[in-house]
Amino acid sequence: MHAVLRMCCPDRAGIVAELSNFIFRNRGNIVHLDQHVDAEANVFFARIEWMLEDFLVPRTGIQNAVDDLVRPFDPTFLGLDFTDRKPRVAIFVSKASHCLYDLLVRRDSGELDIEIPLIVSNHETLRADADKFEVPFHHVPISPSTKETQEEEELRLLDEHDVDTVVLARYMQILSDGFLDRCGASIINIHHSFLPAFVGAKPYHQAYERGVKIIGATSHYVTPELDQGPIIEQDVIRVSHRDSIDDFVRHGRDLERIVLARAVWHHVRHRILTYNNKTVVF
Amino acid sequence: MHAVLRMCCPDRAGIVAELSNFIFRNRGNIVHLDQHVDAEANVFFARIEWMLEDFLVPRTGIQNAVDDLVRPFDPTFLGLDFTDRKPRVAIFVSKASHCLYDLLVRRDSGELDIEIPLIVSNHETLRADADKFEVPFHHVPISPSTKETQEEEELRLLDEHDVDTVVLARYMQILSDGFLDRCGASIINIHHSFLPAFVGAKPYHQAYERGVKIIGATSHYVTPELDQGPIIEQDVIRVSHRDSIDDFVRHGRDLERIVLARAVWHHVRHRILTYNNKTVVF
Amino acid sequence: MHAVLRMCCPDRAGIVAELSNFIFRNRGNIVHLDQHVDAEANVFFARIEWMLEDFLVPRTGIQNAVDDLVRPFDPTFLGLDFTDRKPRVAIFVSKASHCLYDLLVRRDSGELDIEIPLIVSNHETLRADADKFEVPFHHVPISPSTKETQEEEELRLLDEHDVDTVVLARYMQILSDGFLDRCGASIINIHHSFLPAFVGAKPYHQAYERGVKIIGATSHYVTPELDQGPIIEQDVIRVSHRDSIDDFVRHGRDLERIVLARAVWHHVRHRILTYNNKTVVF
Amino acid sequence: MHAVLRMCCPDRAGIVAELSNFIFRNRGNIVHLDQHVDAEANVFFARIEWMLEDFLVPRTGIQNAVDDLVRPFDPTFLGLDFTDRKPRVAIFVSKASHCLYDLLVRRDSGELDIEIPLIVSNHETLRADADKFEVPFHHVPISPSTKETQEEEELRLLDEHDVDTVVLARYMQILSDGFLDRCGASIINIHHSFLPAFVGAKPYHQAYERGVKIIGATSHYVTPELDQGPIIEQDVIRVSHRDSIDDFVRHGRDLERIVLARAVWHHVRHRILTYNNKTVVF
Repeated sequence: MHAVLRMCCPDRAGIVAELSNFIFRNRGNIVHLDQHVDAEANVFFARIEWMLEDFLVPRTGIQNAVDDLVRPFDPTFLGLDFTDRKPRVAIFVSKASHCLYDLLVRRDSGELDIEIPLIVSNHETLRADADKFEVPFHHVPISPSTKETQEEEELRLLDEHDVDTVVLARYMQILSDGFLDRCGASIINIHHSFLPAFVGAKPYHQAYERGVKIIGATSHYVTPELDQGPIIEQDVIRVSHRDSIDDFVRHGRDLERIVLARAVWHHVRHRILTYNNKTVVF
Repeated sequence: MHAVLRMCCPDRAGIVAELSNFIFRNRGNIVHLDQHVDAEANVFFARIEWMLEDFLVPRTGIQNAVDDLVRPFDPTFLGLDFTDRKPRVAIFVSKASHCLYDLLVRRDSGELDIEIPLIVSNHETLRADADKFEVPFHHVPISPSTKETQEEEELRLLDEHDVDTVVLARYMQILSDGFLDRCGASIINIHHSFLPAFVGAKPYHQAYERGVKIIGATSHYVTPELDQGPIIEQDVIRVSHRDSIDDFVRHGRDLERIVLARAVWHHVRHRILTYNNKTVVF
Repeated sequence: MHAVLRMCCPDRAGIVAELSNFIFRNRGNIVHLDQHVDAEANVFFARIEWMLEDFLVPRTGIQNAVDDLVRPFDPTFLGLDFTDRKPRVAIFVSKASHCLYDLLVRRDSGELDIEIPLIVSNHETLRADADKFEVPFHHVPISPSTKETQEEEELRLLDEHDVDTVVLARYMQILSDGFLDRCGASIINIHHSFLPAFVGAKPYHQAYERGVKIIGATSHYVTPELDQGPIIEQDVIRVSHRDSIDDFVRHGRDLERIVLARAVWHHVRHRILTYNNKTVVF
Repeated sequence: MHAVLRMCCPDRAGIVAELSNFIFRNRGNIVHLDQHVDAEANVFFARIEWMLEDFLVPRTGIQNAVDDLVRPFDPTFLGLDFTDRKPRVAIFVSKASHCLYDLLVRRDSGELDIEIPLIVSNHETLRADADKFEVPFHHVPISPSTKETQEEEELRLLDEHDVDTVVLARYMQILSDGFLDRCGASIINIHHSFLPAFVGAKPYHQAYERGVKIIGATSHYVTPELDQGPIIEQDVIRVSHRDSIDDFVRHGRDLERIVLARAVWHHVRHRILTYNNKTVVF
């Protein structure tokens, strides 16, 4: 079992020495150490993963020990996770099944070492698909007049199932600011364009209209501004005048699945740090 | 020697049969035939390249014969070119040399089978580089107050040298609408972003600020709206948090050179058709 | 409903004119026309897809009419297909589920317009997965001593279900020459390397050992020589020293799924022609 | 000015702590720290770059201090470099100019912060190109009978010009084992295929013959076995049946230039470690 420490703080000399000393003198064995300095923003980032076997600090005391250790560095972010706790991920969908299947198959194959306690949808369309994988499916229909109460219901479900990550797997609803304020979980979205190009609705149609020669997909954390959150992962594919909008959509589905899966993979392995509306992905 | 016919017209049955029959019955041998239908816009596109050896229509009569042939199709565009006429390309630059070198080396190697009768720049910076390749270098400095007269001078130079294509190889000036109206030549620009993301100035800085995971370059025909013309070619490269703006710029230079070179290559081989602010690149 | 004609013959003047005239004068409307000449090998390739609505030749007579039409060109290959007949595809698997799921999901979404009448496997592992999609699953275990009789059984199943395409979706058995001789269906394989690099077993391990910076996957038609058949599609992904063999395998699964799906998509749309152990993919 | 330490040793706990402590307690400021563990091979790799301003160990004493520091770790490789010493790079060419121009332009733009004291060629072809950039050009023609003495001459030139890196920029001669044994410089080659596919001569022709859908280029350190040395960088581009061998070669030139330039860039920044015939590129 491993511990994973992520930290973000103002850059100064000696941080790596301090962190690695702490682990070394407590007989932890560092498996991965990644550090990065954004010289322009003067911010230091680190992710250290070490084995807890033989570690002198008992597991229940590690959080306190780490707090004491990093306090002098004034961290703007500190995360401590243990790899024996599986992230609990809720998947929100509408009618498109490709991203949902993709995540479920990756869970079953063990590629994504996560629990998926529930699927939430504003449509009934994918209930049978959820059933195939024996994941509880909650139909929470949304209309302008019901949005507020229905988001209450969604928040209640997330709370009840102790969810720490929400994945919007082509969920076609915009979450209200109130939802975002109150939702303690991280929220990951897949947008079917190469952001910041083609924000908003029907990006493949926008791309087709503009005559681009490459289309893309973008996975990002959700923030109140639509499609403006920190980008986690992007990928693209070449298209030509021979490709119709249907071809854009078909190629795009593959991009969406892969880009979203990579983003979720990094997220649930505690490999991402965010700052200044950007991500560091170790 | 080959003839190259490009045509764009409303789609209807029998166009390919008509065009290929014309060439066949006159003993032309088709080397390349490409056709495309935009089913949504109901537009037909064709490019046919055939050998003129043994062709029964004398060269001087081909234009008329083709005009007669295609008239019934109401073409919205018709181009007839002969491969023994080298395109005459003017290169406009400012201070960055990488695209200029790239084009000159490709001309020298024969990859680009073109004449480059002149280089125009608003700075003296690259004169020595032009000299290395023995291409006349014209310094046409531009300031807000001199822009109009200086663009006159540029138009005069293009006319004097019988230029049919202007390549803006990181030329950092915006051409006035008047220039565009009066310039008979096609104008190809390289923009250092994945358009339509990051229109305008300092796109690498914009990309860095936004935290994208992929950067790109775009070559397009110039139209009055800045960076909005028909896209000819795009390419991208993956970046990460480890890349500084300088790294973006460094990787970007390679993208710019290659994307521009590919666009020019297709253009001077008469492989591009434009419609609805988009391109068909055969 | 459309007809799709594919033809391959020695190159000479007038073939396109002849083919397009035939369709035009019978009031067919050409939807797609692709032609290609391999100038080095002097081979002409064409694929024409046209609407049968209003076509003057009755459907039952089209094959004869086409035979008569193309006879003078001495075609080395001639294919005539109708888009209202769904290709019947058998999927062969072993223990890995990712390509199987991928194909089944694409069938269900309508992206692949095919019938999958059966899944064949030398292991029981994926029976439950097949059941989810209600596709009959046939366990045909293979050992060196039983291979001959078991391949008989496989051939019988293919015949019984009128299969025209076999997809080896990570089927880890090598088909005998006898099987290949007698199997009338096209056989498509996915190999988990960028062929011709890393032929044979454990290609990701070979790639890791060699220290490559990019890994790939290759879909090809199966021929008697292992991993030497005509390549239909390839794709790659960048790796680094940070990637373990497990990471290679994980990234590779995504490549395999997408490359195989694209190959099957082109195949079942009758877009592929083979010659000289290569493919033309229109 | 920075110092750059690269080290490779058997993995064990505490190495990062020891290295970073050394720099911290001597008031060096770490600019980049990269470490990697090959868990399978049990090898630890590090690259640390730190500022020498305010560093307590005088520059002339750093090598000794570092030697003492790392001795307990039994390093299998140790490199210490200072960024104020420009790498001295000899370029070997034959007749193709594209890689040569590329490297010279990158030197002139400052992207490659190197000295190029000489160009060596077995042909006179590129003398004028070398002259444009005012780099001494040495014609050392090679025939089977003269190879031994001519390689002597090449070694003498490298020694005379204090060269530490030789770049084979499409140098079409195979260096003898004797040359490799005696040449103290690192030797970087660009091979015009996606190694290990298409080793040896005419790789684009081999690729065309095999019908691949993607072609590549590979830059690697030269070892006695042809095209088998540690791979530094690779890149690829998609091709289709429409591309002739000439198109392969044309696209390939761009790959070669970029792949070689990236390899040289990493090499001269002391970012590469080799082990087990592989590279770690930090």
